[in-house]
Amino acid sequence: MSRLRTTLEQRYADLDTLGHVNNVAFLTYLQEGRLKLFVQLLRGSFTPRYVVVRNEIDYVRTLNFSLEPLQMDLWIDTIGSSSFTIASEIFDADGQVAARAKSVLVHLNEDGTASQPLPDDVRVLLAHGLDEGSNTP
Amino acid sequence: MSRLRTTLEQRYADLDTLGHVNNVAFLTYLQEGRLKLFVQLLRGSFTPRYVVVRNEIDYVRTLNFSLEPLQMDLWIDTIGSSSFTIASEIFDADGQVAARAKSVLVHLNEDGTASQPLPDDVRVLLAHGLDEGSNTP
Amino acid sequence: MSRLRTTLEQRYADLDTLGHVNNVAFLTYLQEGRLKLFVQLLRGSFTPRYVVVRNEIDYVRTLNFSLEPLQMDLWIDTIGSSSFTIASEIFDADGQVAARAKSVLVHLNEDGTASQPLPDDVRVLLAHGLDEGSNTP
Amino acid sequence: MSRLRTTLEQRYADLDTLGHVNNVAFLTYLQEGRLKLFVQLLRGSFTPRYVVVRNEIDYVRTLNFSLEPLQMDLWIDTIGSSSFTIASEIFDADGQVAARAKSVLVHLNEDGTASQPLPDDVRVLLAHGLDEGSNTP
Repeated sequence: MSRLRTTLEQRYADLDTLGHVNNVAFLTYLQEGRLKLFVQLLRGSFTPRYVVVRNEIDYVRTLNFSLEPLQMDLWIDTIGSSSFTIASEIFDADGQVAARAKSVLVHLNEDGTASQPLPDDVRVLLAHGLDEGSNTP
Repeated sequence: MSRLRTTLEQRYADLDTLGHVNNVAFLTYLQEGRLKLFVQLLRGSFTPRYVVVRNEIDYVRTLNFSLEPLQMDLWIDTIGSSSFTIASEIFDADGQVAARAKSVLVHLNEDGTASQPLPDDVRVLLAHGLDEGSNTP
Repeated sequence: MSRLRTTLEQRYADLDTLGHVNNVAFLTYLQEGRLKLFVQLLRGSFTPRYVVVRNEIDYVRTLNFSLEPLQMDLWIDTIGSSSFTIASEIFDADGQVAARAKSVLVHLNEDGTASQPLPDDVRVLLAHGLDEGSNTP
Repeated sequence: MSRLRTTLEQRYADLDTLGHVNNVAFLTYLQEGRLKLFVQLLRGSFTPRYVVVRNEIDYVRTLNFSLEPLQMDLWIDTIGSSSFTIASEIFDADGQVAARAKSVLVHLNEDGTASQPLPDDVRVLLAHGLDEGSNTP
Protein backbone atom coordinates (compact mmCIF):
# COMPACT_ATOMS: atom_id res chain seq x y z
CA MET A 1 0.00 0.00 0.00
CA SER A 2 1.09 3.51 -0.63
CA ARG A 3 -2.06 5.57 -1.06
CA LEU A 4 -5.20 4.71 0.85
CA ARG A 5 -8.30 5.40 -1.21
CA THR A 6 -11.19 5.75 1.18
CA THR A 7 -14.74 7.05 1.08
CA LEU A 8 -16.60 9.38 3.39
CA GLU A 9 -20.28 10.13 3.82
CA GLN A 10 -21.09 13.78 3.54
CA ARG A 11 -23.67 15.34 5.83
CA TYR A 12 -26.16 18.12 5.28
CA ALA A 13 -24.59 19.57 8.42
CA ASP A 14 -21.33 20.11 6.48
CA LEU A 15 -22.95 22.82 4.38
CA ASP A 16 -23.00 26.49 5.25
CA THR A 17 -25.29 29.36 4.30
CA LEU A 18 -23.86 29.38 0.76
CA GLY A 19 -25.02 25.79 0.23
CA HIS A 20 -21.46 24.47 -0.18
CA VAL A 21 -19.30 22.33 2.07
CA ASN A 22 -17.89 24.80 4.58
CA ASN A 23 -14.11 25.20 4.76
CA VAL A 24 -14.09 23.90 8.34
CA ALA A 25 -15.93 20.70 7.40
CA PHE A 26 -13.00 19.71 5.17
CA LEU A 27 -10.88 19.47 8.32
CA THR A 28 -13.43 17.09 9.77
CA TYR A 29 -13.12 15.06 6.56
CA LEU A 30 -9.33 14.98 7.05
CA GLN A 31 -9.73 13.86 10.64
CA GLU A 32 -12.10 11.03 9.75
CA GLY A 33 -9.81 9.99 6.89
CA ARG A 34 -6.78 9.92 9.20
CA LEU A 35 -8.64 7.62 11.54
CA LYS A 36 -9.21 5.18 8.70
CA LEU A 37 -5.57 5.45 7.63
CA PHE A 38 -4.43 4.72 11.17
CA VAL A 39 -6.67 1.69 11.40
CA GLN A 40 -5.20 0.38 8.14
CA LEU A 41 -1.56 1.16 8.81
CA LEU A 42 -1.13 1.04 12.55
CA ARG A 43 -3.78 -1.31 13.87
CA GLY A 44 -2.67 -2.26 17.34
CA SER A 45 0.18 0.22 17.48
CA PHE A 46 -1.75 3.44 17.63
CA THR A 47 -2.28 5.41 20.81
CA PRO A 48 -3.83 8.83 21.32
CA ARG A 49 -0.32 10.22 21.87
CA TYR A 50 0.00 11.30 18.25
CA VAL A 51 -1.37 14.82 18.06
CA VAL A 52 -1.88 17.19 15.16
CA VAL A 53 0.57 20.10 15.33
CA ARG A 54 -0.10 21.58 11.90
CA ASN A 55 -2.78 21.54 9.23
CA GLU A 56 -2.57 23.15 5.83
CA ILE A 57 -5.22 22.91 3.18
CA ASP A 58 -5.79 24.38 -0.25
CA TYR A 59 -9.38 24.57 -1.39
CA VAL A 60 -9.13 24.00 -5.11
CA ARG A 61 -12.77 23.69 -6.09
CA THR A 62 -16.19 24.31 -4.52
CA LEU A 63 -17.56 21.09 -3.06
CA ASN A 64 -21.28 20.42 -3.22
CA PHE A 65 -23.37 17.97 -1.26
CA SER A 66 -23.86 14.53 -2.69
CA LEU A 67 -25.65 11.48 -1.34
CA GLU A 68 -22.82 9.46 -2.88
CA PRO A 69 -19.85 9.19 -0.49
CA LEU A 70 -16.93 11.34 -1.51
CA GLN A 71 -13.57 9.85 -2.43
CA MET A 72 -10.46 10.71 -0.47
CA ASP A 73 -6.83 9.67 -0.82
CA LEU A 74 -4.41 9.67 2.09
CA TRP A 75 -0.76 8.74 2.26
CA ILE A 76 2.33 9.27 4.37
CA ASP A 77 4.23 12.18 2.90
CA THR A 78 7.29 12.30 5.13
CA ILE A 79 8.54 10.57 8.29
CA GLY A 80 10.71 12.56 10.69
CA SER A 81 12.35 11.57 13.97
CA SER A 82 9.37 12.29 16.23
CA SER A 83 6.74 13.34 13.69
CA PHE A 84 5.24 12.40 10.36
CA THR A 85 3.16 14.14 7.72
CA ILE A 86 -0.04 12.83 6.17
CA ALA A 87 -1.01 14.18 2.76
CA SER A 88 -4.59 14.02 1.48
CA GLU A 89 -6.64 14.77 -1.56
CA ILE A 90 -10.42 15.12 -1.40
CA PHE A 91 -12.34 14.62 -4.64
CA ASP A 92 -15.66 15.97 -5.83
CA ALA A 93 -18.41 13.87 -7.45
CA ASP A 94 -16.74 14.29 -10.86
CA GLY A 95 -13.47 12.88 -9.57
CA GLN A 96 -11.69 16.22 -9.62
CA VAL A 97 -9.54 17.36 -6.69
CA ALA A 98 -11.57 19.67 -4.43
CA ALA A 99 -8.88 20.08 -1.76
CA ARG A 100 -5.27 19.15 -1.04
CA ALA A 101 -4.01 19.03 2.52
CA LYS A 102 -1.13 18.12 4.77
CA SER A 103 -1.30 17.34 8.47
CA VAL A 104 1.75 17.00 10.72
CA LEU A 105 1.45 14.69 13.72
CA VAL A 106 3.88 14.52 16.59
CA HIS A 107 4.54 11.65 18.99
CA LEU A 108 4.21 12.84 22.58
CA ASN A 109 5.61 11.29 25.74
CA GLU A 110 3.28 9.77 28.29
CA ASP A 111 2.39 12.96 30.14
CA GLY A 112 1.98 14.85 26.89
CA THR A 113 4.59 17.49 27.71
CA ALA A 114 7.27 16.81 25.09
CA SER A 115 7.80 15.11 21.76
CA GLN A 116 9.69 11.86 21.63
CA PRO A 117 11.07 9.64 18.84
CA LEU A 118 8.63 7.51 16.89
CA PRO A 119 8.75 3.89 18.08
CA ASP A 120 10.53 1.60 15.60
CA ASP A 121 7.45 -0.53 14.93
CA VAL A 122 5.35 2.53 14.16
CA ARG A 123 8.09 3.85 11.87
CA VAL A 124 8.07 0.58 9.94
CA LEU A 125 4.28 0.57 9.69
CA LEU A 126 4.16 4.19 8.54
CA ALA A 127 6.74 3.43 5.86
CA HIS A 128 4.19 1.15 4.20
CA GLY A 129 2.02 4.19 3.64
CA LEU A 130 4.83 6.29 2.15
CA ASP A 131 4.04 7.70 -1.26
CA GLU A 132 6.49 6.70 -3.99
CA GLY A 133 7.79 10.22 -4.43
CA SER A 134 8.25 10.81 -0.68
CA ASN A 135 11.48 10.94 1.30
CA THR A 136 12.34 9.71 4.75
CA PRO A 137 15.02 12.00 6.10
CA MET B 1 -6.37 49.84 13.80
CA SER B 2 -3.90 47.22 12.85
CA ARG B 3 -4.60 44.16 14.99
CA LEU B 4 -8.13 43.36 16.06
CA ARG B 5 -8.19 41.87 19.55
CA THR B 6 -11.43 39.96 19.92
CA THR B 7 -12.88 37.40 22.29
CA LEU B 8 -14.66 34.15 21.62
CA GLU B 9 -16.80 31.93 23.81
CA GLN B 10 -15.61 28.36 23.91
CA ARG B 11 -18.11 25.52 23.90
CA TYR B 12 -18.05 22.12 25.55
CA ALA B 13 -18.80 20.87 22.03
CA ASP B 14 -15.32 22.04 20.93
CA LEU B 15 -13.68 19.33 23.03
CA ASP B 16 -12.87 15.86 21.82
CA THR B 17 -12.37 12.54 23.58
CA LEU B 18 -9.02 13.74 24.97
CA GLY B 19 -10.75 16.59 26.81
CA HIS B 20 -8.92 19.28 24.79
CA VAL B 21 -10.12 21.65 22.11
CA ASN B 22 -10.09 19.55 18.95
CA ASN B 23 -7.87 20.66 16.08
CA VAL B 24 -10.92 21.18 13.85
CA ALA B 25 -12.60 23.50 16.38
CA PHE B 26 -9.72 25.95 15.99
CA LEU B 27 -10.82 26.45 12.39
CA THR B 28 -14.28 27.33 13.65
CA TYR B 29 -12.63 29.86 15.96
CA LEU B 30 -10.82 31.34 12.96
CA GLN B 31 -14.05 31.55 10.99
CA GLU B 32 -15.91 33.31 13.79
CA GLY B 33 -12.97 35.67 14.30
CA ARG B 34 -12.89 36.53 10.59
CA LEU B 35 -16.55 37.44 10.73
CA LYS B 36 -15.83 39.93 13.50
CA LEU B 37 -12.85 41.31 11.60
CA PHE B 38 -15.00 41.81 8.50
CA VAL B 39 -17.67 43.59 10.48
CA GLN B 40 -15.04 45.93 11.89
CA LEU B 41 -13.09 46.55 8.70
CA LEU B 42 -15.55 46.16 5.88
CA ARG B 43 -18.97 46.99 7.26
CA GLY B 44 -21.12 47.72 4.26
CA SER B 45 -18.60 46.57 1.70
CA PHE B 46 -18.53 42.87 2.40
CA THR B 47 -20.31 40.30 0.26
CA PRO B 48 -20.20 36.53 0.41
CA ARG B 49 -18.01 36.57 -2.69
CA TYR B 50 -14.83 36.37 -0.63
CA VAL B 51 -14.08 32.68 -0.16
CA VAL B 52 -11.37 30.87 1.74
CA VAL B 53 -8.93 29.19 -0.64
CA ARG B 54 -6.28 28.22 1.91
CA ASN B 55 -5.96 27.67 5.63
CA GLU B 56 -2.77 26.91 7.50
CA ILE B 57 -2.51 26.56 11.24
CA ASP B 58 0.18 25.63 13.72
CA TYR B 59 -1.02 24.21 17.01
CA VAL B 60 1.55 25.49 19.47
CA ARG B 61 0.00 24.50 22.78
CA THR B 62 -2.86 22.31 24.03
CA LEU B 63 -5.97 24.39 24.58
CA ASN B 64 -8.28 23.53 27.45
CA PHE B 65 -11.87 24.55 28.05
CA SER B 66 -12.51 27.69 30.00
CA LEU B 67 -15.72 29.48 30.89
CA GLU B 68 -13.80 32.71 30.30
CA PRO B 69 -13.87 33.70 26.61
CA LEU B 70 -10.58 33.13 24.84
CA GLN B 71 -8.59 35.97 23.35
CA MET B 72 -7.83 36.09 19.65
CA ASP B 73 -5.90 38.54 17.49
CA LEU B 74 -6.56 38.97 13.79
CA TRP B 75 -4.94 41.24 11.25
CA ILE B 76 -4.44 41.62 7.53
CA ASP B 77 -1.13 40.02 6.65
CA THR B 78 -0.89 40.74 2.93
CA ILE B 79 -3.10 42.23 0.21
CA GLY B 80 -2.76 40.87 -3.32
CA SER B 81 -4.51 41.81 -6.53
CA SER B 82 -7.55 39.58 -6.10
CA SER B 83 -6.87 38.04 -2.69
CA PHE B 84 -5.76 38.89 0.81
CA THR B 85 -4.38 36.98 3.77
CA ILE B 86 -5.66 37.15 7.34
CA ALA B 87 -3.27 36.16 10.11
CA SER B 88 -4.49 35.09 13.55
CA GLU B 89 -3.22 34.15 16.96
CA ILE B 90 -5.39 32.30 19.45
CA PHE B 91 -4.40 32.58 23.11
CA ASP B 92 -4.96 30.25 26.04
CA ALA B 93 -6.23 31.33 29.48
CA ASP B 94 -2.67 32.24 30.53
CA GLY B 95 -2.26 34.58 27.57
CA GLN B 96 0.14 32.28 25.74
CA VAL B 97 -0.23 31.59 22.03
CA ALA B 98 -2.08 28.30 21.51
CA ALA B 99 -2.25 28.52 17.72
CA ARG B 100 -1.03 30.68 14.82
CA ALA B 101 -2.90 30.64 11.53
CA LYS B 102 -3.19 32.21 8.10
CA SER B 103 -6.23 32.18 5.85
CA VAL B 104 -6.18 33.29 2.22
CA LEU B 105 -9.42 34.70 0.80
CA VAL B 106 -10.12 35.32 -2.85
CA HIS B 107 -12.57 37.72 -4.43
CA LEU B 108 -14.82 35.89 -6.87
CA ASN B 109 -16.87 37.29 -9.73
CA GLU B 110 -20.65 37.26 -9.54
CA ASP B 111 -21.21 33.72 -10.75
CA GLY B 112 -18.38 32.42 -8.58
CA THR B 113 -16.39 30.95 -11.47
CA ALA B 114 -13.24 33.09 -11.46
CA SER B 115 -11.27 35.43 -9.25
CA GLN B 116 -11.36 39.13 -9.94
CA PRO B 117 -9.48 42.18 -8.62
CA LEU B 118 -10.37 43.47 -5.16
CA PRO B 119 -12.60 46.56 -5.41
CA ASP B 120 -10.72 49.76 -4.60
CA ASP B 121 -12.87 50.58 -1.57
CA VAL B 122 -12.32 47.12 -0.10
CA ARG B 123 -8.58 47.45 -0.72
CA VAL B 124 -8.53 50.72 1.20
CA LEU B 125 -10.55 49.27 4.07
CA LEU B 126 -8.36 46.17 4.27
CA ALA B 127 -5.27 48.37 4.41
CA HIS B 128 -6.48 49.70 7.78
CA GLY B 129 -6.12 46.21 9.15
CA LEU B 130 -2.62 45.69 7.79
CA ASP B 131 -0.09 44.75 10.41
CA GLU B 132 2.85 47.13 10.69
CA GLY B 133 5.32 44.56 9.44
CA SER B 134 3.16 43.54 6.46
CA ASN B 135 3.68 44.38 2.80
CA THR B 136 1.23 45.21 0.06
CA PRO B 137 2.74 44.04 -3.19
CA MET C 1 -42.56 0.79 1.99
CA SER C 2 -43.37 1.59 5.54
CA ARG C 3 -40.11 1.74 7.46
CA LEU C 4 -36.96 2.97 5.78
CA ARG C 5 -33.92 1.11 7.06
CA THR C 6 -30.89 3.25 6.36
CA THR C 7 -27.27 3.40 7.44
CA LEU C 8 -25.17 6.29 8.64
CA GLU C 9 -21.43 6.70 8.99
CA GLN C 10 -20.39 7.78 12.44
CA ARG C 11 -17.61 10.30 12.90
CA TYR C 12 -14.97 10.67 15.56
CA ALA C 13 -16.29 14.23 15.78
CA ASP C 14 -19.59 12.86 17.15
CA LEU C 15 -17.88 11.83 20.39
CA ASP C 16 -17.54 14.00 23.44
CA THR C 17 -15.12 14.05 26.36
CA LEU C 18 -16.70 10.89 27.77
CA GLY C 19 -15.81 8.95 24.62
CA HIS C 20 -19.47 8.32 23.71
CA VAL C 21 -21.66 9.75 20.99
CA ASN C 22 -22.78 13.10 22.38
CA ASN C 23 -26.51 13.67 22.86
CA VAL C 24 -26.46 16.49 20.30
CA ALA C 25 -24.88 14.30 17.61
CA PHE C 26 -27.97 12.07 17.68
CA LEU C 27 -29.96 15.02 16.36
CA THR C 28 -27.50 15.30 13.48
CA TYR C 29 -28.10 11.59 12.84
CA LEU C 30 -31.86 12.27 12.75
CA GLN C 31 -31.38 15.14 10.33
CA GLU C 32 -29.25 13.09 7.95
CA GLY C 33 -31.71 10.21 8.18
CA ARG C 34 -34.65 12.52 7.37
CA LEU C 35 -32.83 13.70 4.27
CA LYS C 36 -32.57 10.11 3.07
CA LEU C 37 -36.22 9.47 3.89
CA PHE C 38 -37.27 12.54 1.92
CA VAL C 39 -35.21 11.47 -1.07
CA GLN C 40 -36.90 8.07 -0.97
CA LEU C 41 -40.45 9.23 -0.33
CA LEU C 42 -40.73 12.67 -1.85
CA ARG C 43 -38.18 12.83 -4.65
CA GLY C 44 -39.22 15.77 -6.82
CA SER C 45 -41.88 17.03 -4.43
CA PHE C 46 -39.73 18.24 -1.59
CA THR C 47 -38.90 21.88 -0.98
CA PRO C 48 -37.11 23.52 1.92
CA ARG C 49 -40.49 24.80 3.15
CA TYR C 50 -40.89 21.87 5.53
CA VAL C 51 -39.30 22.92 8.78
CA VAL C 52 -38.77 21.10 12.06
CA VAL C 53 -40.99 22.54 14.79
CA ARG C 54 -40.39 19.86 17.41
CA ASN C 55 -37.84 17.19 18.29
CA GLU C 56 -38.11 14.68 21.08
CA ILE C 57 -35.61 11.95 21.73
CA ASP C 58 -35.09 9.29 24.37
CA TYR C 59 -31.54 8.07 24.82
CA VAL C 60 -32.00 4.43 25.72
CA ARG C 61 -28.43 3.18 25.63
CA THR C 62 -24.92 4.63 25.46
CA LEU C 63 -23.71 4.66 21.85
CA ASN C 64 -20.05 4.02 21.13
CA PHE C 65 -18.04 4.76 18.03
CA SER C 66 -17.85 2.10 15.37
CA LEU C 67 -16.22 2.10 11.96
CA GLU C 68 -19.24 0.10 10.80
CA PRO C 69 -22.11 2.41 9.78
CA LEU C 70 -24.92 2.46 12.29
CA GLN C 71 -28.42 1.30 11.42
CA MET C 72 -31.36 3.64 11.61
CA ASP C 73 -35.08 3.17 10.94
CA LEU C 74 -37.35 6.03 9.95
CA TRP C 75 -41.04 6.09 9.20
CA ILE C 76 -43.99 8.44 9.01
CA ASP C 77 -45.76 8.30 12.34
CA THR C 78 -48.70 10.63 11.74
CA ILE C 79 -49.90 12.97 9.01
CA GLY C 80 -51.83 16.08 10.02
CA SER C 81 -53.39 18.84 7.95
CA SER C 82 -50.28 21.00 7.64
CA SER C 83 -47.70 18.88 9.44
CA PHE C 84 -46.40 15.34 9.76
CA THR C 85 -44.34 13.42 12.28
CA ILE C 86 -41.31 11.28 11.51
CA ALA C 87 -40.40 8.58 14.00
CA SER C 88 -36.91 7.09 14.20
CA GLU C 89 -34.93 4.41 15.94
CA ILE C 90 -31.15 4.45 16.03
CA PHE C 91 -29.42 1.13 16.71
CA ASP C 92 -26.07 0.33 18.25
CA ALA C 93 -23.55 -2.15 16.82
CA ASP C 94 -25.35 -5.04 18.57
CA GLY C 95 -28.65 -4.15 16.93
CA GLN C 96 -30.19 -2.80 20.11
CA VAL C 97 -32.12 0.46 20.16
CA ALA C 98 -29.85 3.28 21.35
CA ALA C 99 -32.38 6.07 20.83
CA ARG C 100 -36.01 6.64 19.86
CA ALA C 101 -37.09 9.97 18.45
CA LYS C 102 -39.93 11.90 16.88
CA SER C 103 -39.65 15.02 14.76
CA VAL C 104 -42.60 17.17 13.73
CA LEU C 105 -42.32 19.06 10.45
CA VAL C 106 -44.63 21.83 9.31
CA HIS C 107 -45.37 22.99 5.79
CA LEU C 108 -44.81 26.74 5.51
CA ASN C 109 -46.16 29.18 2.95
CA GLU C 110 -43.82 30.80 0.47
CA ASP C 111 -42.63 33.65 2.66
CA GLY C 112 -42.25 31.33 5.64
CA THR C 113 -44.64 33.24 7.89
CA ALA C 114 -47.48 30.75 8.38
CA SER C 115 -48.26 27.07 8.09
CA GLN C 116 -50.38 25.86 5.21
CA PRO C 117 -52.02 22.54 4.28
CA LEU C 118 -49.82 19.77 2.93
CA PRO C 119 -50.12 19.52 -0.86
CA ASP C 120 -52.17 16.51 -1.94
CA ASP C 121 -49.28 14.85 -3.81
CA VAL C 122 -47.01 15.16 -0.78
CA ARG C 123 -49.76 13.71 1.42
CA VAL C 124 -50.04 10.71 -0.87
CA LEU C 125 -46.27 10.19 -0.96
CA LEU C 126 -45.97 10.51 2.82
CA ALA C 127 -48.71 7.92 3.26
CA HIS C 128 -46.40 5.34 1.66
CA GLY C 129 -44.06 5.82 4.58
CA LEU C 130 -46.78 5.44 7.21
CA ASP C 131 -46.04 2.76 9.75
CA GLU C 132 -48.67 0.02 9.95
CA GLY C 133 -49.72 1.00 13.44
CA SER C 134 -49.96 4.72 12.63
CA ASN C 135 -53.08 6.79 12.16
CA THR C 136 -53.87 9.59 9.78
CA PRO C 137 -56.30 11.87 11.56
CA MET D 1 -32.14 31.78 42.56
CA SER D 2 -34.83 30.11 40.59
CA ARG D 3 -34.24 30.90 36.93
CA LEU D 4 -30.73 31.35 35.61
CA ARG D 5 -30.62 34.02 32.91
CA THR D 6 -27.51 33.41 30.86
CA THR D 7 -26.11 34.54 27.52
CA LEU D 8 -24.59 32.57 24.70
CA GLU D 9 -22.51 33.62 21.72
CA GLN D 10 -23.93 32.46 18.43
CA ARG D 11 -21.64 31.21 15.70
CA TYR D 12 -21.86 31.46 11.94
CA ALA D 13 -21.35 27.69 12.08
CA ASP D 14 -24.79 27.35 13.75
CA LEU D 15 -26.51 28.39 10.52
CA ASP D 16 -27.61 26.01 7.81
CA THR D 17 -28.26 26.41 4.08
CA LEU D 18 -31.44 28.38 4.83
CA GLY D 19 -29.45 31.03 6.69
CA HIS D 20 -31.18 30.30 10.01
CA VAL D 21 -29.94 28.63 13.17
CA ASN D 22 -30.25 24.92 12.41
CA ASN D 23 -32.52 22.83 14.64
CA VAL D 24 -29.54 20.77 15.83
CA ALA D 25 -27.60 23.86 16.94
CA PHE D 26 -30.33 24.62 19.48
CA LEU D 27 -29.35 21.41 21.28
CA THR D 28 -25.79 22.66 21.44
CA TYR D 29 -27.16 25.87 22.97
CA LEU D 30 -29.01 23.78 25.57
CA GLN D 31 -25.86 21.83 26.36
CA GLU D 32 -23.75 24.95 26.84
CA GLY D 33 -26.50 26.51 28.95
CA ARG D 34 -26.70 23.41 31.16
CA LEU D 35 -22.98 23.61 31.79
CA LYS D 36 -23.40 27.17 33.07
CA LEU D 37 -26.38 26.15 35.21
CA PHE D 38 -24.35 23.31 36.73
CA VAL D 39 -21.46 25.63 37.52
CA GLN D 40 -23.88 28.01 39.26
CA LEU D 41 -25.94 25.42 41.12
CA LEU D 42 -23.64 22.50 41.73
CA ARG D 43 -20.12 23.88 41.80
CA GLY D 44 -18.03 21.22 43.48
CA SER D 45 -20.74 18.59 43.54
CA PHE D 46 -21.05 17.84 39.85
CA THR D 47 -19.55 14.79 38.22
CA PRO D 48 -19.90 13.49 34.69
CA ARG D 49 -22.23 10.80 36.02
CA TYR D 50 -25.33 12.85 35.20
CA VAL D 51 -26.28 11.94 31.66
CA VAL D 52 -29.00 13.20 29.37
CA VAL D 53 -31.67 10.54 28.83
CA ARG D 54 -34.25 12.71 27.09
CA ASN D 55 -34.44 15.96 25.17
CA GLU D 56 -37.58 17.62 23.90
CA ILE D 57 -37.69 20.95 22.18
CA ASP D 58 -40.32 23.08 20.49
CA TYR D 59 -39.08 25.51 17.88
CA VAL D 60 -41.43 28.44 18.26
CA ARG D 61 -39.81 31.01 16.01
CA THR D 62 -37.06 31.15 13.37
CA LEU D 63 -33.79 32.23 14.95
CA ASN D 64 -31.41 34.40 12.96
CA PHE D 65 -27.75 35.09 13.51
CA SER D 66 -26.80 38.03 15.66
CA LEU D 67 -23.44 39.30 16.82
CA GLU D 68 -25.16 40.11 20.12
CA PRO D 69 -25.19 37.07 22.44
CA LEU D 70 -28.58 35.44 22.72
CA GLN D 71 -30.44 35.26 26.01
CA MET D 72 -31.36 31.93 27.55
CA ASP D 73 -33.23 31.00 30.71
CA LEU D 74 -32.69 27.70 32.50
CA TRP D 75 -34.29 26.32 35.62
CA ILE D 76 -34.93 23.06 37.41
CA ASP D 77 -38.37 21.88 36.41
CA THR D 78 -38.74 18.72 38.50
CA ILE D 79 -36.56 16.63 40.81
CA GLY D 80 -37.16 12.88 40.91
CA SER D 81 -35.49 10.15 42.94
CA SER D 82 -32.60 9.50 40.57
CA SER D 83 -33.23 12.11 37.89
CA PHE D 84 -34.11 15.75 37.38
CA THR D 85 -35.46 17.85 34.55
CA ILE D 86 -34.02 21.13 33.30
CA ALA D 87 -36.34 23.47 31.44
CA SER D 88 -35.04 26.16 29.10
CA GLU D 89 -36.21 29.05 26.99
CA ILE D 90 -34.07 30.51 24.24
CA PHE D 91 -34.86 34.07 23.14
CA ASP D 92 -34.34 35.85 19.85
CA ALA D 93 -32.83 39.33 19.48
CA ASP D 94 -36.27 40.89 20.09
CA GLY D 95 -36.66 39.07 23.40
CA GLN D 96 -39.29 36.67 22.09
CA VAL D 97 -39.13 32.97 22.84
CA ALA D 98 -37.54 31.14 19.91
CA ALA D 99 -37.53 27.70 21.56
CA ARG D 100 -38.73 25.92 24.68
CA ALA D 101 -37.01 22.73 25.82
CA LYS D 102 -36.78 20.14 28.56
CA SER D 103 -33.85 17.83 29.24
CA VAL D 104 -33.99 14.90 31.65
CA LEU D 105 -30.74 13.91 33.36
CA VAL D 106 -30.17 10.71 35.28
CA HIS D 107 -27.64 9.99 38.01
CA LEU D 108 -25.63 6.90 37.12
CA ASN D 109 -23.63 4.64 39.39
CA GLU D 110 -19.87 4.55 39.12
CA ASP D 111 -19.61 2.06 36.29
CA GLY D 112 -22.42 3.78 34.40
CA THR D 113 -24.63 0.70 34.22
CA ALA D 114 -27.61 1.72 36.34
CA SER D 115 -29.34 4.76 37.77
CA GLN D 116 -29.01 5.54 41.45
CA PRO D 117 -30.62 8.02 43.84
CA LEU D 118 -29.49 11.64 43.68
CA PRO D 119 -27.07 12.43 46.54
CA ASP D 120 -28.70 14.52 49.27
CA ASP D 121 -26.35 17.48 48.80
CA VAL D 122 -27.07 17.56 45.05
CA ARG D 123 -30.80 17.38 45.76
CA VAL D 124 -30.55 20.39 48.06
CA LEU D 125 -28.50 22.36 45.54
CA LEU D 126 -30.89 21.51 42.71
CA ALA D 127 -33.80 22.68 44.80
CA HIS D 128 -32.35 26.20 44.72
CA GLY D 129 -32.87 26.18 40.98
CA LEU D 130 -36.46 24.96 41.18
CA ASP D 131 -38.93 27.20 39.40
CA GLU D 132 -41.68 28.55 41.65
CA GLY D 133 -44.37 26.65 39.83
CA SER D 134 -42.46 23.35 39.88
CA ASN D 135 -43.13 20.30 42.00
CA THR D 136 -40.82 17.88 43.70
CA PRO D 137 -42.59 14.55 43.78
